[in-house]
Amino acid sequence: MIKTKAYAAQNAKTPLAPWSFDRRNVGDMDVLIDIEYCGVCHSDIHQARDEWGGAMFPMVPGHEIIGRVIEVGKKVKKFKVGDRAGVGCMVDSCRECSACRADLEQFCEKGASLTYNSLELDKVTPTQGGYADKIVVDEAFTLKIPDNLDAAATAPLLCAGITTYSPLRHWKIGKGHKVGIIGLGGLGHMGVKFASAFGAETIVITTSPDKAEDAKRLGASGTIISRDADDMAKHIGSFDFLLNTVAAQYDPAPYLNLLKHDGTMAVVGVPNKPLNLHLFSVIMGRKTLAGSLIGGIAETQEMLDFCGKHNITSDVEIIPIQHINEAYERMIRGDVRYRFSIDMQSLKTA
Amino acid sequence: MIKTKAYAAQNAKTPLAPWSFDRRNVGDMDVLIDIEYCGVCHSDIHQARDEWGGAMFPMVPGHEIIGRVIEVGKKVKKFKVGDRAGVGCMVDSCRECSACRADLEQFCEKGASLTYNSLELDKVTPTQGGYADKIVVDEAFTLKIPDNLDAAATAPLLCAGITTYSPLRHWKIGKGHKVGIIGLGGLGHMGVKFASAFGAETIVITTSPDKAEDAKRLGASGTIISRDADDMAKHIGSFDFLLNTVAAQYDPAPYLNLLKHDGTMAVVGVPNKPLNLHLFSVIMGRKTLAGSLIGGIAETQEMLDFCGKHNITSDVEIIPIQHINEAYERMIRGDVRYRFSIDMQSLKTA
Repeated sequence: MIKTKAYAAQNAKTPLAPWSFDRRNVGDMDVLIDIEYCGVCHSDIHQARDEWGGAMFPMVPGHEIIGRVIEVGKKVKKFKVGDRAGVGCMVDSCRECSACRADLEQFCEKGASLTYNSLELDKVTPTQGGYADKIVVDEAFTLKIPDNLDAAATAPLLCAGITTYSPLRHWKIGKGHKVGIIGLGGLGHMGVKFASAFGAETIVITTSPDKAEDAKRLGASGTIISRDADDMAKHIGSFDFLLNTVAAQYDPAPYLNLLKHDGTMAVVGVPNKPLNLHLFSVIMGRKTLAGSLIGGIAETQEMLDFCGKHNITSDVEIIPIQHINEAYERMIRGDVRYRFSIDMQSLKTA
Repeated sequence: MIKTKAYAAQNAKTPLAPWSFDRRNVGDMDVLIDIEYCGVCHSDIHQARDEWGGAMFPMVPGHEIIGRVIEVGKKVKKFKVGDRAGVGCMVDSCRECSACRADLEQFCEKGASLTYNSLELDKVTPTQGGYADKIVVDEAFTLKIPDNLDAAATAPLLCAGITTYSPLRHWKIGKGHKVGIIGLGGLGHMGVKFASAFGAETIVITTSPDKAEDAKRLGASGTIISRDADDMAKHIGSFDFLLNTVAAQYDPAPYLNLLKHDGTMAVVGVPNKPLNLHLFSVIMGRKTLAGSLIGGIAETQEMLDFCGKHNITSDVEIIPIQHINEAYERMIRGDVRYRFSIDMQSLKTA
C-alpha cells in the first residue's frame, strides 16, 4: 500500500493559481524528474481537443513519463538523484478510502489527482503532464524503472502497459487459458505481449488482416479476422478470456459468443457512445462483461519489475515534440506501430 | 454430476411425431408424475404467444411442476411410487459436454431439452410442459421435494427459485454483503428471501413505493425507489452485489453506480431489446455486469433442500386452469404477489 494520508500530510504544498502553468516547488516528499521520453496516449488527443468536455487550459498532456531524478525532497526515501523514474496516469489520491487502502488509487472515492487536466488534492492547483522538460511528483506516485529497459520504449508501459497488465492479472490469466486480445493498437500490442508472457494461448482478434504477421511476432499463436463471420464461427465458445481494447463503436455480442461458459470479456477501450448489449449475450453461459482502468501504484511497479525481468517494452516510433500534431492525425488513422514516444530533448531545439 | 450419457443410453425412447401431443411411455429410467401444481412463469406467456419466435404448436406450457410419482421405470433408483417430485426448466441434456460435466446442464453445448416448446435429445419428439395432469421425465432431471414444503408454494421454486438462488450462490453472497434486489416480482421476491436467508443486508430497489412493506416482510432491511434520484444518490458506491430481475427496458448506469469497486450486477431478467451500456459504467470501479440462467440439476436440488431446511417457499395465488388467460393479463400488469400456481385438480372439472 502507498503511504498513508498522515504521512502524506508532511508533504504540504502551496496551492498554485487555477490558471497556473508553473511547477510547484519540490516538497519534502517530492522528486523533481528530468523527463527523457513521454508516450502519446489516445486520451491525450481527446483531452487536448476537449472531446470529453471540461478540459482545463492551459494544458500540458502526457501521462507516460520516463526520466531521471535530479532533485529530491528532504524526506524522500525511495529515490536519490540520478535514479530512473516513471510517472503514469495519477500523481496523488486521498490514501485513506477503501479503494486507496485496496491499492486501487485509480478508484479513489475522493477522486485521484490525474497527471494532467486535473487538480491536485487541494482541488485548486492544476496538474500538468509529461510533454515537458520536468515534472514534480510525490515519491509515493513515482515508479522505479528497471535499469535494463530502453527509456523510449518503456514510457508507454506507464499507461498502455498497466492498462492491459492489470486485467490479465486480476482475472488470473496464465497457462491453460485461451485468451483473445481484441484490437491490435497501443493497448492491444501490450496485451499480446503480457498474455503470452503469462503463458496463455493468445489470439489476436482484429479487423485488419495485414496485422497477422505482427501479431505472431508479438507473441500471438493466431489471428481471427473479426469481420469474417466464418472465421469467428470456428471459435465460438472456445475462449476463457477476452481483453477488448477497441475504442470505436462495436456490437459486443459476436465477441461474447466466443467465450466459454463463465468466461469474461474485460473492456479497457471506451467508445464515445453506449454499446447495444442484448442481455442474452451474458445470460447464456453466465458470462461476464467487466471493465478495468489502468492499475494501482503497487501493481504498476509490479508490472514494471515484471517487464524488467522479461525484457518487455512497447513497440515505439520516436518523434520530436515538433511532430506531435501529425502524430495525433496518424494515431486517429491507426497509422502507428504501436505507440509514439516523444524525445523530450527535442524541446531544447524548439 | 448427473448420470453419464452411457448410463442414459439405457433409457432408449421411441421418438414421437413432431406434432405429437402424447406423452411417451415410461422408459426404464423414467418416472411418471401426477402433477399437483404448476407455477406460471412470465416466459410461459412469451412462448404461448410466440413472442420470442419459433414456437412449436400444439404447446403445453409450464416448467414449475410439483407432483407425486405414480409409476417408475424398472431401472429407476432415486424415486419410488408415492414420492414427491418436481420438474423445472429442463428434462434432458447431452451429459458429456464441458457444461454438463460442470453441472451446468442449462448451458449444454448441444442444447438442453427444455421442458416444453423444445425437443427431446432425438431432436424430433416435442416436449410438453406442466399445464397437464401428468408428465414423464427421466429420473436424472427429476427433483426430490422436501416433505415439509407446501406443494402450491413450492412449484415456483423450480424456475423463479433456482434463477435467483444460483447467482447469489455463484457470487458467494452472505454475511457482510450489502445486496440489492432490483424488481420485486416473481423472481425478485425469491431473491429477497434467499439473500436475507444467506445473511446479507438485503435492499429492494423498485419503482413501486407501495411494495416497501412487502419488501420488509420478505426479509429486506430497506427499499430504494429507483425513480427517486435523491434516494439512489444516497446509496452510490455502497453495494457489493445487485441481482437485477427487471425484464423491461432500463438504463443500467444508475444501478452500476450503486456498486462498490469490484462489485457485480447479475442480470436474470431479459428485456426484449438491447440495453444501452456506456462502458464507463463498468470501467470506473472495475465493475462486472454478468448474466445467469436458472441453475443446473444438482444446484436445483441443493436449493430445494435449503428451502426445506429453512422453510422457504414462494408467495403464491392459487388459480384453477380455467383462469389462466386472466392470470396472464394480470401478470403483464404486475398484478400478482408474487406468483400464480395452478391447481391441476381443476383440469378434472374442465
